[in-house]
Amino acid sequence: MFGSSVCSHEVVGEVLEVGSEVTGLRVGDRVGVGVLVGCCRNCTPCKSDIEQYCSKKIWSYNDVYTDGKPTQGGFAGEMVVAQKFLVKIPDGISSEQAAPLLCAGVTVYSPLNHFGLKQSGLRGGILGLGGVGHMGVKIAKAMGHHMTVISSSDRKREEALDHLGADAYLVSSDETGMKEAADSLDYIIDTVPVFHPLEPYLSLLKLDGKLILLGVINTPLQFLTPVVMGGRKAITGSFIGSIKETKEMLDFCEEKGITSQIEVIKMDYINAAFERLEKNDVRYRFVVDVAGSKLD
Amino acid sequence: MFGSSVCSHEVVGEVLEVGSEVTGLRVGDRVGVGVLVGCCRNCTPCKSDIEQYCSKKIWSYNDVYTDGKPTQGGFAGEMVVAQKFLVKIPDGISSEQAAPLLCAGVTVYSPLNHFGLKQSGLRGGILGLGGVGHMGVKIAKAMGHHMTVISSSDRKREEALDHLGADAYLVSSDETGMKEAADSLDYIIDTVPVFHPLEPYLSLLKLDGKLILLGVINTPLQFLTPVVMGGRKAITGSFIGSIKETKEMLDFCEEKGITSQIEVIKMDYINAAFERLEKNDVRYRFVVDVAGSKLD
Repeated sequence: MFGSSVCSHEVVGEVLEVGSEVTGLRVGDRVGVGVLVGCCRNCTPCKSDIEQYCSKKIWSYNDVYTDGKPTQGGFAGEMVVAQKFLVKIPDGISSEQAAPLLCAGVTVYSPLNHFGLKQSGLRGGILGLGGVGHMGVKIAKAMGHHMTVISSSDRKREEALDHLGADAYLVSSDETGMKEAADSLDYIIDTVPVFHPLEPYLSLLKLDGKLILLGVINTPLQFLTPVVMGGRKAITGSFIGSIKETKEMLDFCEEKGITSQIEVIKMDYINAAFERLEKNDVRYRFVVDVAGSKLD
Repeated sequence: MFGSSVCSHEVVGEVLEVGSEVTGLRVGDRVGVGVLVGCCRNCTPCKSDIEQYCSKKIWSYNDVYTDGKPTQGGFAGEMVVAQKFLVKIPDGISSEQAAPLLCAGVTVYSPLNHFGLKQSGLRGGILGLGGVGHMGVKIAKAMGHHMTVISSSDRKREEALDHLGADAYLVSSDETGMKEAADSLDYIIDTVPVFHPLEPYLSLLKLDGKLILLGVINTPLQFLTPVVMGGRKAITGSFIGSIKETKEMLDFCEEKGITSQIEVIKMDYINAAFERLEKNDVRYRFVVDVAGSKLD
């Protein structure tokens, strides 16, 4: 198996065995598992195929499964998962490439899909160029959007423009640049996971523009109501994406040839990888080749 | 003329004279003017009939008109207004009743219209029961919504339930009541014009629910991102409404027999009225009968 992210909640592997009621999956198929492995299947979100909003959802790691046992993620030789939470990996995407799409990829795809932001010609912004942000640039570019990466420093300019294919780069402390870009974006995907002021970014949005928050931040964020009201702007957010959207997103990435930028490592590198993660020293995901690692 | 609100930006009067290019309006027609009397007519909002978002809009009071002269609102014997900013008052609505609809009425009608919240069966909340809030209850009830008035004290319970026809009343400090009402509302119209925490109200919203801010507040409001992301909720707002929506809203109010709750006064009562306004002592708008006042 290949796994990436915390405790591996982006897992790709091969089907070793199927239950008696499983249809459409065969031994040998390449499949992926994302953040969730369970939900109630009866509530409104579950019945609307947006099970990520079920209040009884079960995380694929550090949670308790229906049998009372802990869920352990994908840093493992094998994993038992209900079919509902498995997606087939399209032939055109390699296993290690697919892993980061299962959370980071769908986390940006889902709001673009849900908020009606898939049509070409839109102007989007990405705030925070990390694992999720870099997928945001790639997926939105493939939708035909004009993309601006907004960052606190000039450090990622080359990366954004030359390697990821962004159309513009904006440093948030550059008052002139920010003023020139005012009222120019249909949406901003905000992946910053720590406190930051919202006004500068709300000002970049057009009338009816959306600031889509994806970072879990436990310090309150702040904004002034006139900035929102005066342009009928929305501060919103979303949480990963559904299995249905994950399938759509994988097909979209295959069709458009989108790859995630990764560094494949073996299990014995995991401590060094965590140290580098703390220093933000990875572009943009470590993918652990679990099956190819010697597990003592 | 009849005028209500600050400097009278809700004005109803009779057409005394028409310009040579005016069509569809005749001397004697009853017409209304709201918050705006001018816009650029060329920008995207203007061309989309949402001129309230034009950056060159001209306020009907305390602004500068295209001729360089100040705009003075409707506390006057006569007023010259471009036809674009005039609405005919439907026969079924009296002049004094119509006045508060021209700002307060359309300010709640517009977001319900724009955000797709007009269909019957929705569950809405009104935060802050003043001039705008009381119109919110009336208009949303007429749309067939189940309406909850949310207030900081029990003081307005009878008013909300018995006089305005709200379905439920919730005191924000009542933890049990707030918990029971969690995840139950499709939208909340928030008319509170001073700082207040948003979490308690965001928690009342269903998945995909909207918190619609209508109060201009110059102290930053605060929220935690998980509350928004976890239910794909939106914090948004809007600014009055368009002339097109004002016409629709007036027709809707005539059809549904909606009246605003007002106290008609003469001009010589204006100082007493302002003193009472400061004490929040009016249900819910003073309407000044300018024409019926002796103007010395």
